[in-house]
Amino acid sequence: MSTKVVRNYVNGEWIESESKELLDITNPSTGEVIGRVPLSTRGEVDRAVEAAKQAFWDWRTTPPMARARYFFRLKEVLEDNFEDVVRVTSVDAGKTLDESRGELRRAIEMVEVACGIPSLMMGSSLEDVSNGIDCVSTRQPLGVFSAITPYNFPTMVPFWFWPFALACGNTFVVKPSEQDPLTQEQIFRFIDDEVGFPPGVLNMVNGGKEAVSAITENPDVKGVSFVGSSEVARIVYKKCGETGKRVQSLGGAKNFLVVMPDADLDTTVPAIIHAAYGCAGQRCLAASVVVAVGDIHEPLRDALVAAARNVRVGPGPEENIQMGPVISLAHKERVLSYIEKGIEEGADLILDGRQPDVKGDKGGFFVGPTIFDGLSPDMVIANEEIFGPVFGIMHAQNLDEAIDVVRKNPYGNATCIFTGKGKWAREFTYRAEASMMGINVGIAAPMAFFPFGGTKGSFFGDVKAHGSEVIDFFTDKKVIITRWI
Amino acid sequence: MSTKVVRNYVNGEWIESESKELLDITNPSTGEVIGRVPLSTRGEVDRAVEAAKQAFWDWRTTPPMARARYFFRLKEVLEDNFEDVVRVTSVDAGKTLDESRGELRRAIEMVEVACGIPSLMMGSSLEDVSNGIDCVSTRQPLGVFSAITPYNFPTMVPFWFWPFALACGNTFVVKPSEQDPLTQEQIFRFIDDEVGFPPGVLNMVNGGKEAVSAITENPDVKGVSFVGSSEVARIVYKKCGETGKRVQSLGGAKNFLVVMPDADLDTTVPAIIHAAYGCAGQRCLAASVVVAVGDIHEPLRDALVAAARNVRVGPGPEENIQMGPVISLAHKERVLSYIEKGIEEGADLILDGRQPDVKGDKGGFFVGPTIFDGLSPDMVIANEEIFGPVFGIMHAQNLDEAIDVVRKNPYGNATCIFTGKGKWAREFTYRAEASMMGINVGIAAPMAFFPFGGTKGSFFGDVKAHGSEVIDFFTDKKVIITRWI
Amino acid sequence: MSTKVVRNYVNGEWIESESKELLDITNPSTGEVIGRVPLSTRGEVDRAVEAAKQAFWDWRTTPPMARARYFFRLKEVLEDNFEDVVRVTSVDAGKTLDESRGELRRAIEMVEVACGIPSLMMGSSLEDVSNGIDCVSTRQPLGVFSAITPYNFPTMVPFWFWPFALACGNTFVVKPSEQDPLTQEQIFRFIDDEVGFPPGVLNMVNGGKEAVSAITENPDVKGVSFVGSSEVARIVYKKCGETGKRVQSLGGAKNFLVVMPDADLDTTVPAIIHAAYGCAGQRCLAASVVVAVGDIHEPLRDALVAAARNVRVGPGPEENIQMGPVISLAHKERVLSYIEKGIEEGADLILDGRQPDVKGDKGGFFVGPTIFDGLSPDMVIANEEIFGPVFGIMHAQNLDEAIDVVRKNPYGNATCIFTGKGKWAREFTYRAEASMMGINVGIAAPMAFFPFGGTKGSFFGDVKAHGSEVIDFFTDKKVIITRWI
Amino acid sequence: MSTKVVRNYVNGEWIESESKELLDITNPSTGEVIGRVPLSTRGEVDRAVEAAKQAFWDWRTTPPMARARYFFRLKEVLEDNFEDVVRVTSVDAGKTLDESRGELRRAIEMVEVACGIPSLMMGSSLEDVSNGIDCVSTRQPLGVFSAITPYNFPTMVPFWFWPFALACGNTFVVKPSEQDPLTQEQIFRFIDDEVGFPPGVLNMVNGGKEAVSAITENPDVKGVSFVGSSEVARIVYKKCGETGKRVQSLGGAKNFLVVMPDADLDTTVPAIIHAAYGCAGQRCLAASVVVAVGDIHEPLRDALVAAARNVRVGPGPEENIQMGPVISLAHKERVLSYIEKGIEEGADLILDGRQPDVKGDKGGFFVGPTIFDGLSPDMVIANEEIFGPVFGIMHAQNLDEAIDVVRKNPYGNATCIFTGKGKWAREFTYRAEASMMGINVGIAAPMAFFPFGGTKGSFFGDVKAHGSEVIDFFTDKKVIITRWI
Repeated sequence: MSTKVVRNYVNGEWIESESKELLDITNPSTGEVIGRVPLSTRGEVDRAVEAAKQAFWDWRTTPPMARARYFFRLKEVLEDNFEDVVRVTSVDAGKTLDESRGELRRAIEMVEVACGIPSLMMGSSLEDVSNGIDCVSTRQPLGVFSAITPYNFPTMVPFWFWPFALACGNTFVVKPSEQDPLTQEQIFRFIDDEVGFPPGVLNMVNGGKEAVSAITENPDVKGVSFVGSSEVARIVYKKCGETGKRVQSLGGAKNFLVVMPDADLDTTVPAIIHAAYGCAGQRCLAASVVVAVGDIHEPLRDALVAAARNVRVGPGPEENIQMGPVISLAHKERVLSYIEKGIEEGADLILDGRQPDVKGDKGGFFVGPTIFDGLSPDMVIANEEIFGPVFGIMHAQNLDEAIDVVRKNPYGNATCIFTGKGKWAREFTYRAEASMMGINVGIAAPMAFFPFGGTKGSFFGDVKAHGSEVIDFFTDKKVIITRWI
Repeated sequence: MSTKVVRNYVNGEWIESESKELLDITNPSTGEVIGRVPLSTRGEVDRAVEAAKQAFWDWRTTPPMARARYFFRLKEVLEDNFEDVVRVTSVDAGKTLDESRGELRRAIEMVEVACGIPSLMMGSSLEDVSNGIDCVSTRQPLGVFSAITPYNFPTMVPFWFWPFALACGNTFVVKPSEQDPLTQEQIFRFIDDEVGFPPGVLNMVNGGKEAVSAITENPDVKGVSFVGSSEVARIVYKKCGETGKRVQSLGGAKNFLVVMPDADLDTTVPAIIHAAYGCAGQRCLAASVVVAVGDIHEPLRDALVAAARNVRVGPGPEENIQMGPVISLAHKERVLSYIEKGIEEGADLILDGRQPDVKGDKGGFFVGPTIFDGLSPDMVIANEEIFGPVFGIMHAQNLDEAIDVVRKNPYGNATCIFTGKGKWAREFTYRAEASMMGINVGIAAPMAFFPFGGTKGSFFGDVKAHGSEVIDFFTDKKVIITRWI
Repeated sequence: MSTKVVRNYVNGEWIESESKELLDITNPSTGEVIGRVPLSTRGEVDRAVEAAKQAFWDWRTTPPMARARYFFRLKEVLEDNFEDVVRVTSVDAGKTLDESRGELRRAIEMVEVACGIPSLMMGSSLEDVSNGIDCVSTRQPLGVFSAITPYNFPTMVPFWFWPFALACGNTFVVKPSEQDPLTQEQIFRFIDDEVGFPPGVLNMVNGGKEAVSAITENPDVKGVSFVGSSEVARIVYKKCGETGKRVQSLGGAKNFLVVMPDADLDTTVPAIIHAAYGCAGQRCLAASVVVAVGDIHEPLRDALVAAARNVRVGPGPEENIQMGPVISLAHKERVLSYIEKGIEEGADLILDGRQPDVKGDKGGFFVGPTIFDGLSPDMVIANEEIFGPVFGIMHAQNLDEAIDVVRKNPYGNATCIFTGKGKWAREFTYRAEASMMGINVGIAAPMAFFPFGGTKGSFFGDVKAHGSEVIDFFTDKKVIITRWI
Repeated sequence: MSTKVVRNYVNGEWIESESKELLDITNPSTGEVIGRVPLSTRGEVDRAVEAAKQAFWDWRTTPPMARARYFFRLKEVLEDNFEDVVRVTSVDAGKTLDESRGELRRAIEMVEVACGIPSLMMGSSLEDVSNGIDCVSTRQPLGVFSAITPYNFPTMVPFWFWPFALACGNTFVVKPSEQDPLTQEQIFRFIDDEVGFPPGVLNMVNGGKEAVSAITENPDVKGVSFVGSSEVARIVYKKCGETGKRVQSLGGAKNFLVVMPDADLDTTVPAIIHAAYGCAGQRCLAASVVVAVGDIHEPLRDALVAAARNVRVGPGPEENIQMGPVISLAHKERVLSYIEKGIEEGADLILDGRQPDVKGDKGGFFVGPTIFDGLSPDMVIANEEIFGPVFGIMHAQNLDEAIDVVRKNPYGNATCIFTGKGKWAREFTYRAEASMMGINVGIAAPMAFFPFGGTKGSFFGDVKAHGSEVIDFFTDKKVIITRWI
């Protein structure tokens, strides 16, 4: 990969952006510039939307089963080029090879579910809603949809949306993160070469704020799916509110992991470590705060520190690495500032990752595994999303206290409990307010056939991502009432 | 009914508003003032929301089946007091007795569907989403919801929402229209006396703009259902976008009725007349424009005029009346101004209802059945919602031209076709853009077990009103992933 | 109630049977004859079927919502006459008042679910299954269905079937147990007086073997629902196999209750006692064998014996009774013979109910609470259904051994586990072969909106009773493929 | 293909049958013997069932998504070897290449739907079915299933069942028709080489009556799917009734095609010809009787005869052939005897296919396109399934008369109407008794995601083949009620 300029993909063609504004794409593991990404103009977005709009009717009248066949093909293509995509992601986003593999696997799972569209998009029917009058509801696609996706899962997140949208008969414009756009470019290359959706059905435009504005303001865009920080998620939700669009806006998270006194440390500790340091903590499903209930506090703390120390930090694309860098220098500084903040607030820094020992580091944006103890619910580091390899331990007297902390937190993405007791688990899942819950699994993502998304400050909208539920977002239920005379 | 002041119903108690601002409630059939309605303050709305919030947890932990039992009881209560409610509505809103009966029947149908909540709110489950890991999704209520409802169906529209919301375990604040709040007051009296939801579970606050703002801004309100004009629907959608709430916002309509050359006039004409003049045209399902295709234009036009002339206009509560007044003097003037506009634009006023002959009229807000011929798609009266007993006839050469008109119109609520041919009907329902479609039934409302709502400028959001679909609006799908260790 | 002769209810009329064969109906609490029941002839069954057949088309063309209204009414009628039905059941079947109340409550729950038929019986629809070709599936009723129901739940079991069948648009013939037909007679009287299904829609014929043969052989009966012993369930399944009918045949049970070492005895013991002695053990959900795992064996055994000793045995209709008699002298003898058998096989009879102390007993068919210890999996009393207040305790070393016992048993109706550990519960529900499973709830019946039925020797067929599933049994899914030309 | 002996496929291995009884496999286009098929013994069936039973637990505990992956792979394998399978089918069954392609395409569609198993096999869940008690239903596989399939669709029919059964976690034994077993042998070869289900998961046993008996009698077979004549379908249904198994038994058909006076002959005639002569009429969806309503009788008759004369009859595997031979000499004679019968009954033989002109015929079992006119409802040829290229024309005065004929016929598989009028189509689909209905599509098979099967004498059971419905056949819904203490 040379310092090439990423292109847009519009109407079945690769197009160089006309934009004068370009950003460097940096390999987070080395700090090297590996490409440039254009901040496409409003006009470029509008042309992509127009291409999608033009492609709509032919695609919408293609039978669902015929549309599904493209996804069967897409699955094969992604399987065949699996490691090629993985390598690009690891360079582009600084993820370990296994992390890159993991998210591509998830992306493929989305495609697998989209293959079932004939069953998933059925409407319903009833004879004689009144004498001799029948009623049928049918799900019809709406037109052009768009997704604005984040840097932390450059492979997977776009797949949460567009395969379902297209399978339903819509056309699409994807705007990947400008921080690591190489992955989607690579994927689109395979799609262009080997899948061959009709021109205009699937489009990609690179860009930043102007592109986001253009998407949320273009009247031909029927709905927008956003994934990113809560701050921007609120803005996108608000913008779509202004322009009257459908919107599902997934924001940030502060995920609590409650460890009960009976938890099995042999499985709990690796699960927490994985949740905390996977993707260098840059996940809306990252472990944010461990709530140790009762006496388990000390042994848990010690085991976590011991395990965290052993995490092998290094360049994403290298073998045997367990944690890569964060995405950028700016983000590294933001993470470090939260560590400073924690110290300042009086939390106890029991593992300090500010100066990680990374062999052969040539300038990567590394932060080492970091752990605070002694968190209290009112601290900034217990409430704001850090999005780095930093978590804190809080001590609670009992389950009620732990649930209370989860309920009061402004976010509501994911949470989990470690216990062998059914009663504690049920109490927790019933009362804690977060929409994705784990019992002894760490912070787990729902599979592609279940919905993904949170509540409270983590999600704005009503229909979540992927699963059969997302079909509701991408279709309009048309109700047809018939009396033949 | 004396000129009493309508009260709010909060936390299981009837409360006099502290507001200094009161509006007159007028009997549209006579112009008499029959009561006064307070424009409740932000503080009053907030206290209702707080009552609902406090009532939430106990209601949420009540088993769905036990919640359903309140609705079985509610159905009985409404059946037992059917004619009492009907009379109030006819006085309050100027509707004919049959129209009042019709909407109360619809309201009861909503309650009947809500009785099925244990089946309707089921989540899903799958064993072994990974080895030894199971996944369950469960629908949980979110807290306080609210509905802001219009004057034209003072009985029915609140029932599109709150029975489903409550059945799901949420609590609720209803704000009825300030133009005819007596109907809901009457209904709430029966509910209070004979159904007895726990205090705070169901609340009603009367008011105007300030109350609407308070509802859309109160952070404890999780979602808002709005029904009204598209103008306000857009505002409510935008406001909820700003405050990050769930929102389903149903706006206005311009409903096209396409009459094909083979239509059976004996059934078509009454269906159009009913759709045009029911509720004096104040319906989001009103007949707005009749598109006569081909040679049927002349005979259809003549038959419509003849039938419209025979519509008996008079005071709503009287027997044997077929059309009552519009809601207010101001609205009457607005309707008349559209008639002027039509004349000005060159449409052919073939039936003029501006001076209706109403026996013993003591000052009601009557507009007689009005028909324009010679509409063209670019006229104001072919595009804006008149919301009165006025419709226009447009002539189209063929079905394609008719479908084109429907597709280009900014609204997309309902539409229908009159034909005996399957091919025409399918072509129409497949391509015309409106979400509620009739074939030989006029503009028909989906039954309570199907969703209600439009597309384009008629609906903002993704989840429609009532039916099994609305459960998605009133619940959060919590996904629980479990590995027992 | 005098020694009257029970009548049949056919075509909306009460009809005296022409049969010469009549059986005595006995009050099991006293041994008194309280009525006589005719063993209706084949001809009488055929006439009832013919009435149902004639009533079919009008009922089938009645809109589902209109059919549902009968069930809303039926619920009210049953609520209004609740205690009247309860008293008859307690006399007729010897059940305690609370048991009679319990099963009537369950019956009403079935009616409540049937009220939701418009949502439950929807088919599905998909546009463009091929270019321009749409497909709709619609559920259509089939004609006449019939249920043959047992004595142990004379109120509830018929309601598992006919409300759903009728709601779907079928017509029905019920054959209640000839041992306690007075309950259904009473219920049908209320239905006839106050609900008023159209004549022929719902019919009841009393009878025995000949009636059963007539039902399974009449070519106009489209499907049969049976509940009774496995022996007869197999016969009915076979007969319907011969005559090509739909059939769901629910047989007997041997229900294992596994108590893990961590079980909470304070809740476990009452749950077991309730499961064992409720309805004097005459339940397909009765506790048959308690499997005590590990050290809990002794304390559990002692607590069970202590609790069982305190069960107040007496005449069903009296207040404060906890267990009534079994249904007949013949059945009492059968139960006693199993106790003899257990002694003979070497099981340890730790509580002997053969000579129960019943105050003021005038000849009721009482068997007192009976417990064996030392059961082994190969004993007759560990494998055959006793259907009386007798259970045995088996000792297992660990959960695997307990699961093994459940898996090897020829029945597979219900089972349960008592433990606080999620892992044990999941292991058990995943591997034990029975279709209705309880975790810390004893042997619990699924609610009306979930399916009821077992596996292995407890159920023959594929579609279970009640819940949304039973709609599949009572309708034919018609698939309509349309290309309009 | 030499005259080899077909082998069984058991436990992942190709096994030569020990049976002494072998039948010749004949190429129906030439009469040549192309192989021999063993009539496997009961012991061989039992060993296959045993292998399936042994393989069950491991397969059942494989996550549904992992099971689905085998089907993604299977789809690829079948696509890659598409024409190889097609050629075998055309030789083996005498079908034209396009017919062979058509059924393989359908088979692949089944596999595509089975890929969606994680979504399709979800159970349901509800919190608080009672206070603090939750309920989950989960679909669990049952063990070993088996299908007994007919000669007329040697590729497709086995795929109606086993992909769904396996996807649900069951294991399987297929018994293909002994008349054309080479197709499945070929398919299994590809499956064995390139898909690699774990040994024992999928097995195939060739055979005849003894094998069928063995399948229906083996206690480890949990359910049987049968497709064939109604005569045998009844026997299999009865046998499974005796042995207490689940069973879905699809029998024969007599499919009526109603042509209304307004039908478009340009599309109607080819649709009828295709339905009548596709697969030489050997289809349960074959056109059996054309009911010409009113004046269309004459022009329709003439057009049908003209079109039928042009059907190119010849050896299946040759290019440009439109109709191949029937399966065997015996079957040819049976078809001819029906033609004799028709003549004898007084029907008017307007196209006689008894001596077809087939170029270069070397002894194939050819019957040419045959048409009777003047059928009356009581004739044998109007009631019995001929299963050859023979259909009759009946004349009806009006739609009611036509519907009456369909309703009275003992079969109820498929039917269709040709008309442009919605009213006639609705009247027909509502009242005619057959479960698969076409409107202007001839006799069309439901797609893989809808259910396949008839009613009356065409289907015995309740759950139909394929679609989401068949999941109910292949799983047991386990209901788990949990109260954590």
